This record gives sequence, structure tokens and C-alpha cells, in this order.
Amino acid sequence: MSEKLSTQPYKGTRDFYPQDMRLRNWFFGVIRKVLETSAFDEYNGPMLESLDIYAAKSGEELANEQTYNFTDRGDRRLAIRPEMTPTVARMVAAKMGELNFPLKWFSIPNMYRCERPQRGRLREFWQINVDIFGCDGFEADLECIASAIRILRAYGADETMFTVRINNRRFFNDVIAAITGADPEGARKVSKVIDRKNKIPREAYEKELRELGLDDAQIARIDALYTMNVKDATAICPDSVGSTELRQLFDALEKAGLAPYCVFDFGIIRGLDYYTGTVFEVFDNAPENNRAMFGGGRYDNLVGLFVKNAKISGVGYGMGDVTLENFLFTHHLVPASFGAGVKVLVTRFDDVPYESYLAVLDALRDAGIVSSVFLGAKKFGKQIDFAVKDGYTHVVIMGGDEYARGVVRVKDLTTREEQELTLSNAIAALR
Amino acid sequence: MSEKLSTQPYKGTRDFYPQDMRLRNWFFGVIRKVLETSAFDEYNGPMLESLDIYAAKSGEELANEQTYNFTDRGDRRLAIRPEMTPTVARMVAAKMGELNFPLKWFSIPNMYRCERPQRGRLREFWQINVDIFGCDGFEADLECIASAIRILRAYGADETMFTVRINNRRFFNDVIAAITGADPEGARKVSKVIDRKNKIPREAYEKELRELGLDDAQIARIDALYTMNVKDATAICPDSVGSTELRQLFDALEKAGLAPYCVFDFGIIRGLDYYTGTVFEVFDNAPENNRAMFGGGRYDNLVGLFVKNAKISGVGYGMGDVTLENFLFTHHLVPASFGAGVKVLVTRFDDVPYESYLAVLDALRDAGIVSSVFLGAKKFGKQIDFAVKDGYTHVVIMGGDEYARGVVRVKDLTTREEQELTLSNAIAALR
Repeated sequence: MSEKLSTQPYKGTRDFYPQDMRLRNWFFGVIRKVLETSAFDEYNGPMLESLDIYAAKSGEELANEQTYNFTDRGDRRLAIRPEMTPTVARMVAAKMGELNFPLKWFSIPNMYRCERPQRGRLREFWQINVDIFGCDGFEADLECIASAIRILRAYGADETMFTVRINNRRFFNDVIAAITGADPEGARKVSKVIDRKNKIPREAYEKELRELGLDDAQIARIDALYTMNVKDATAICPDSVGSTELRQLFDALEKAGLAPYCVFDFGIIRGLDYYTGTVFEVFDNAPENNRAMFGGGRYDNLVGLFVKNAKISGVGYGMGDVTLENFLFTHHLVPASFGAGVKVLVTRFDDVPYESYLAVLDALRDAGIVSSVFLGAKKFGKQIDFAVKDGYTHVVIMGGDEYARGVVRVKDLTTREEQELTLSNAIAALR
Repeated sequence: MSEKLSTQPYKGTRDFYPQDMRLRNWFFGVIRKVLETSAFDEYNGPMLESLDIYAAKSGEELANEQTYNFTDRGDRRLAIRPEMTPTVARMVAAKMGELNFPLKWFSIPNMYRCERPQRGRLREFWQINVDIFGCDGFEADLECIASAIRILRAYGADETMFTVRINNRRFFNDVIAAITGADPEGARKVSKVIDRKNKIPREAYEKELRELGLDDAQIARIDALYTMNVKDATAICPDSVGSTELRQLFDALEKAGLAPYCVFDFGIIRGLDYYTGTVFEVFDNAPENNRAMFGGGRYDNLVGLFVKNAKISGVGYGMGDVTLENFLFTHHLVPASFGAGVKVLVTRFDDVPYESYLAVLDALRDAGIVSSVFLGAKKFGKQIDFAVKDGYTHVVIMGGDEYARGVVRVKDLTTREEQELTLSNAIAALR
């Protein structure tokens, strides 16, 4: 080829050079640590799935439009996973009889969405998925929300930086029915309009509600919900299941000490059709970045896509890496450097047999000290330049003279101090 | 939908349930630890790449045939990466001016190949990629091979279990030229036949060589190479560059104490066109599994696909997870259990306020103890059953009586011993 290939990654995807990867390993490491300490178990599944499972969940059109999909040589319609929920529902369905419910599972898969890249949205991203299966009670909703708060706190975020906005889909239906007096089908039509409230002009919003039979007073009562607290909102339909669930969850959040992070927000609906109870979104409080970072909620019927009459409820959330990283940078929660431990370069001279350096290296590595010998044959000054640029903290120097006397010199690249030591003392000092 | 979806993963891919994932995290953790200690830096790149970069490396036909590829809405030809080398070459090319050579890089990406699944080969797999860029000397070849040996040793494998079989492509050309007296083009034709030696009948092999002008004595001399050691083999063309490189590497391996793991093997050629120096394959020595697990070598021109006249040499290998796992199981190198640390279930009774359990849980988790409260409301015995089945090592019991007295009971699920303690003493004991 005379035409050279582009060195750019595919639009909407990222290359992770070592310095980027150190950030990511720290970033995911914090999440893994928190979730493992909370006894969540990690799982993973394939990057390619049958397109049908996304079509069954979100509709043929959306699945087709939002995924990278194609047909394999066996005429199977495949998609690169755009989300993890159908995969995990499939996995739970496949082993329903042997799994030990309730399950507390998490995963950190890479996935693709076919959309125009923009701030906070890329085509390739990683998504932390946290789900609890097989517990119908508020305890699971609480544990789920608490895990998200615990993750953000582990990064150093506090209640001034983020807010968990919580609603309940059952309550949403109940309160709409109570205000409008509509039957479930009618309430559903009203809900669809309310779901689009922020996406259409106020006039259009009111017009659509009036067309569904609402009067000005009813529209005003719905408006009022957006600024209400849980107590006042649930007082509208106090005995409904949705109100009971919502009060129970907020009571538990309060008692768990999580109230400072959480508010009731009637505006949280979450477009997806499958949420059935608690829904929540975690917002960045920074004025320049104020928006939902991620969210989730309770869904009851996903496993039912795979197993007839299966009744395994789930509650969970998916947290995208791009948005979360933006949040951490916005609030200055990313450390200046990572893995700042000792890293040792053994410099090399021509008058010393190479195998002596290899022996030094073996001893360092066997002691668990991150180390390398300089690869190649450059002047000493160049080797030091390489070490400084590459984040090495120390060099071990063994020239002909040191070699003859059975010692090494250890130079601290930060303080520039140098010590002459036997190898075993050098290892003890470095460790 | 009345027709239920399949719960099976796509052919040739795997679901990783928590117990599988614990194995994988251990498995990759060992590799990461070894490579990081040897001062290799981790990187990653996108799962989707332009199909062109695979076509440029391996030819249009092979790239098309072996990858999952398709066209996006912007008419870009994309492929799910079937290997990492073109990605890493692209990344090095993109930042050639700012990178600090030599680079020691590794990655553990997931990838796809479009082929019939069989033992050791799946459609989705992970591949540990280790590469050193920008060092022409034998030191990089040595460091590369040493890292592979160090990984296998870290799992507990020894020289009876695996062998690194090493050849050199330059030597291969040199010795063929020396035996046949052919020019480079003629030697290349002979090489192509030799590369297929084990894939075609002996008669066809000899016939093809004779057609290229070789006589019986020359064919016999080539045959003899397969059982020769380095010294005898390089004696055929003692002053050639390839012989010098091969002797230098074996001398260094010997001095580095790696000779017990390594042998010269003229049969190692590696089909791919781009290897230019050292080539090696690591074999499983188990009689029932005796075959190449993975391999690699030196390639000089990959970055040149992206940058005109770029001269950055590389040496590296790619190690597939499936083959390596087979090896570990064959040699009984997989521990019976992973992460066997303390894991605590806080059991729950109805007569104790839920928030008291949440307080216990917070204290345990803040102390870094892996813990959960039982989610839901089952009888005590069922909660214990759940804990045992789920690998919990301890339960913390706080009934109404304990709650009133400000203590908890800690039960060790292995020994069945129970202790009554204050919470802070319980935490100290569990930690």
C-alpha cells in the first residue's frame, strides 16, 4: 500500500495509552472494591448477542437503530451489546433453578451504541452494571441505591456534589389516577405526555393533557408534584401501594443515614417501559454539569422474556464510564498520579556482563519490586532521561567498579540522593 | 412475544457466572501482577477498528474471512478486532514523536474470530498481548520470552510442563540459502513449502522441493535441521546475521537461567508474513495436550503501515485465555477456591429494627469486611442455608435479645463455633 492508514481510532471510541489506562484501572478498581466489600459478585457475558433479545426488550425499531447489528454466516442476527440487562436476564433465566437467590451481581463490560458522539456519550463505553435479583422488598432498592452512594463517596464525593433523585413508577401511576380519576389505560396516556414534559413546549404539553380530558386544576395539581416532598406527594393517594413503597424507601434511606444524598423528584420517570417500582437518577450538582449521570430502578419481568411465567424481580442501575469520569474531573476527585509506588530501572554499562543485570533484575522482581533493565545500549545520561520520563522512582547503577566490588548504587530520582549498598540491602531499602 | 427467547449465549462465546468470574479474575490477576512487576505498562484500544488495518496486515481475503465485519451508517468498513497487533501498531504510530522508547506494553482485550468453535478455539476470547517496541537488540527478545516464562511459573508451572520452542526467521532464510544455494526469491519459495511440511503428505513435500531444484541430499540436510541443537544448526551458516542472533539469544537465555525452559526448534516458522527475527511458540508438554499454546516473535515493519518510513521494531506475543486455561487445568494448577477471605452475612429478624442491621453492615463495610445483610424476610434457617450456599464464611446474628443487650453473635460457618461479642470486638475478630 502506498496510501498510509489512518492512526485515529474509530469515531466515538478511545485509545487508552498507559497513562489513560492507569486512570481507568484506578477508576474501576475503586468500584470493584466497594461492590466486592458489599458482597456483590462479578459476572460477565459475551460482547455479541442475538439481536432478538434487545428487540424483545426495547422494540425492533429501537434495537435496530441503536445497536451495531449484522447477520453472521449462519444467518443469525447479531448485535454488539448496547447494554447489559438483556444479557444478565438471559443468564439468570438459564440457571434459574440452581442460582441462590437473592443474587447481588455486578459487571463492568464494554459496549457499543450507534449514535452521534457528544459530551458524555461515546459509541464505545464501559458500563458498571449493578443488579439484585429475587428480592421484592424495599431492602433491595435501598441496598442498590446505597451501593451507588458508597461508590461515589469512595471517590471522595460528598452530598454537595451529587443528588440521588428518586421516584416510584407505581406511585406515579397511582397519583396520576388519583388526580385525573382516569382508569389505568387513561392514566397511561397521561403518563406518556408527562414523560415528554421537558421535551415539548409548555403549550403543547398543556394542549395534549387537555385533549386527554384534564382541566386546568388537574394540570396545576400535577405541576405541584414537581416541588413536593415525599410526605405531601404520597398524601394525595395515601393508601396506594406506590405511596407505601415510596414512604418505606425514604424512611429506610433516612434511617440508613442516606437522606442527605436523596430527594424525591416526581420528574424522574425513565423512558424505558420496563421499570415497575422505584426509579432513580443520580445528578451531578455542579452548575456547569448539572444533569443525570446515571440511573436505574426496579423491573419485574425481564427474566420472563426467556422463561414462561418466571417471576424474578430485579432492581439495578447502569453507570457509564464517560459520564462518571467527567463528574470526577469536574469535582477534582482524580488524583494527580496513580500507582506512585517504587519503580526501579537497572541501568546498563557495556563493561559489565549482561547476565549480572539480569540477576539483579530477577532478585528485584522476586521481591515484588516493579523493575526493568534498560533495554538497548544508550549512554548513561540517556538511560536516566528515559527513567525520569517513564515515571521510574529509582535507578540501580552497577558499573564495572561496583560490579567488581559486589555492590550497587541506588539513586532516588526525586531527591537525587545516592547510596552504595549490597544488592540484598538495596532490595530491603527499596521494599 | 409468545415464543420465548433462547437462554444460550451465542455459539462460540461464554457466559461468566460469578464462580467463573472469580477464576478469571484470579487468572488475569496473576498475569497483571507479573507483567506490572516487570514494568510493563497496560494499554487498551477500541473493540471496533477499520477493517483496512487488518486487510493491510494480513490481506483483504483473510481479513474478510476471519473477522466479524460490517459497514456502518457512514459507509465505513469496520471489524470487531480479531487480534490486537494492528491496534497497538496504530496507537504507537499516532504518538510516535512523544512516546518514550523502548515501550514495554501489555493488554488483555476481548476479541472475536469468525471461525468454527473447537477445543481451545472460541469465537470470543481474551488475549494477553505483550510487546516491546523500539529495541532492536536481543535484550528485548529475551525480556519478552522471560515474561512468558515468568507468567507460567507464577501459576506454579515448571519446566516439565511447558517448553519454549525458538527459531529465527532470518536464520531460517540464511540456512535455506546456504543449503540450497538459492537466491532470496528461490529461498522464499522453498520456505513456503517447508512451512507446509506438516500439512501435506511427505511425498508431496519432497515433490515440491524437487520441483524447486533441490536434490535428495539437500532435502536430507533440511530434515536434519529439525533435530539439531543451536550450535550444530548455526554451524551450517556460521557467519550469517540470523546465526549470530540465534546464538546470542540462546547464550543470554542460558545465562539468565532460562535454558531449562527453552529449545531450538527449526519447525517453528509461524505462518504470518511479518515476523523478521526471533520466533517462538510455547508448548504444553502434557502428552494428551501436546501442542503450541501461544507464540510470538520479532516484527519490524508494522508501524510502517501507518507512518511512512517509520522504523520501529517490535517483539511480542499473544496468549489466548482459552488455551492457557486448558493448560492450567491439565496440570492441576487452578486452586480449588478463590478469594477465600472472610465474607459475612448479617442475618435478620423481624423484631429488630432494620436500621440496626444497616448500622452493623456499615461498620463491617467501613472496616473493609466483605458483608451483606440478608435481603428479604426468610426464616433464620433459610438465611443460614443461603449463607452456606453462597460462600459466606461467617454470620452475624442479632436477635431481639442481643439487640437489647448491645451485642451480636458471630458464627463461623466452617467450625460452627459461635461467640457473643460487642460489635467492635466482632469487627476486630473478623478482621
